[in-house]
Amino acid sequence: MTSRHEMEEGAAAEVVGGLNAVLAALKRRPRACRAIMVAEGRRTNAAMDEIFALIREHGLGYKSAPRQALDRHYGRSGHQGVLAFFDPVEYTPFEDFLESLPQEGPALIVALDRVEDPGNLGALMRSALAFGASAVLVPRERAASLSPTALSAAAGAAEVLPLIRVVNLRRALEILQKRGFWLAAAEEDGETSLFGFDFPERLVIVLGSEGRGLQPNIKKICDYLLAIPQRRGDVSSLNVSVAGAIFMSEFFRLHFSKD
Amino acid sequence: MTSRHEMEEGAAAEVVGGLNAVLAALKRRPRACRAIMVAEGRRTNAAMDEIFALIREHGLGYKSAPRQALDRHYGRSGHQGVLAFFDPVEYTPFEDFLESLPQEGPALIVALDRVEDPGNLGALMRSALAFGASAVLVPRERAASLSPTALSAAAGAAEVLPLIRVVNLRRALEILQKRGFWLAAAEEDGETSLFGFDFPERLVIVLGSEGRGLQPNIKKICDYLLAIPQRRGDVSSLNVSVAGAIFMSEFFRLHFSKD
Repeated sequence: MTSRHEMEEGAAAEVVGGLNAVLAALKRRPRACRAIMVAEGRRTNAAMDEIFALIREHGLGYKSAPRQALDRHYGRSGHQGVLAFFDPVEYTPFEDFLESLPQEGPALIVALDRVEDPGNLGALMRSALAFGASAVLVPRERAASLSPTALSAAAGAAEVLPLIRVVNLRRALEILQKRGFWLAAAEEDGETSLFGFDFPERLVIVLGSEGRGLQPNIKKICDYLLAIPQRRGDVSSLNVSVAGAIFMSEFFRLHFSKD
Repeated sequence: MTSRHEMEEGAAAEVVGGLNAVLAALKRRPRACRAIMVAEGRRTNAAMDEIFALIREHGLGYKSAPRQALDRHYGRSGHQGVLAFFDPVEYTPFEDFLESLPQEGPALIVALDRVEDPGNLGALMRSALAFGASAVLVPRERAASLSPTALSAAAGAAEVLPLIRVVNLRRALEILQKRGFWLAAAEEDGETSLFGFDFPERLVIVLGSEGRGLQPNIKKICDYLLAIPQRRGDVSSLNVSVAGAIFMSEFFRLHFSKD
């Protein structure tokens, strides 16, 4: 629900569209909001009321426009009659992230090896935020970036959760290992079942690309190779964003929830 | 990884692209396969070898073509150098499905109320197949159909798993209840945690649209309203295809797996 957009003032902005996405983005980054557009005649509802409350609270103002104008700014429909324009999201440097990381207690990081589909990157960021991850870690090369598609699938999560790009993913993972993190790879052929697995409380979930899986030199340093039990034989694997979310929900259940 | 395509003989075919999707489709519907295209100079690998083995086994033959020709037939890139053309996928009538349903033992059905995003429909079909669901049930109106986007996200699952369109979703759910199925709604505000919930062995998971949730008249007849524990406050909800998959994996763990 986000796309890049050339603002009148010249610098590229993120266009966030859709009730949930705009609401989440306004809550987290009110000061980064440059403008808001609401479709003429849009009926209000609970989410829209909350958006108007935030607009008032932060003195943002908004402008009404025909729905077609919103379509044009958004590049398509599906914005539910509300758009917000934000300063672009930044990547977080790995060193800054390491410094900000609490020294102890449960912590979850999601690392993506060669996940090149921007929709999957965004979907994984959305789930990572929901399940309490501290960051998503990707290599600089051969990885999806925060494209409009990724930002759309992230539904506001990309503006909240740090996305860290590193030159060498394996080295970054080894640094995390030295800081007490365990590496759990999601592997279709993993010998251990995810269900009932006793996750250590500091964990990196390592996900490979669909089809190609993890690179051997990444897989080699992982402490656990875990598989999600599923029906055999038909379609070979779950979507990586679904598999990742199931891993994260298991970690959340174990270390972040009281259930 | 599938799209509609006007074949030379005039009838619309599904174009399946990508290694996993082509492999899955060839395994399940070899007789529905009309043609296969492989990009010139495409390197082989395990999945491609398996595709060639199936081509030989079923006497299908294939034709080599420049990668650009595949892009054109597929409507975009991302086909990994292999396309297969199939007879279109059909919807399954509800009555036929009811008759085919085993009278007892664990069974899972996934019902979608107002899920209008075709990517989500496809992703849910993929997960439903992986976690052993018997079918996906959708209303005829206000629901995504098996568009190219849906078929792509389903990655072959739409050709295997019955998708049932009913005129009245509530009535269909009540018929399933009379046949011993329990209805569990995934509800953000559900009072019961999904984790550790003791699913009955005949279950319909009922998922609502993102943002709007379930219609009141559907919610009312559900036996359980279950929520996935997650971090509060930032982004309001998981993607519906992720939430659905987490529900399905819980059911699978309880009734279909030995873990």
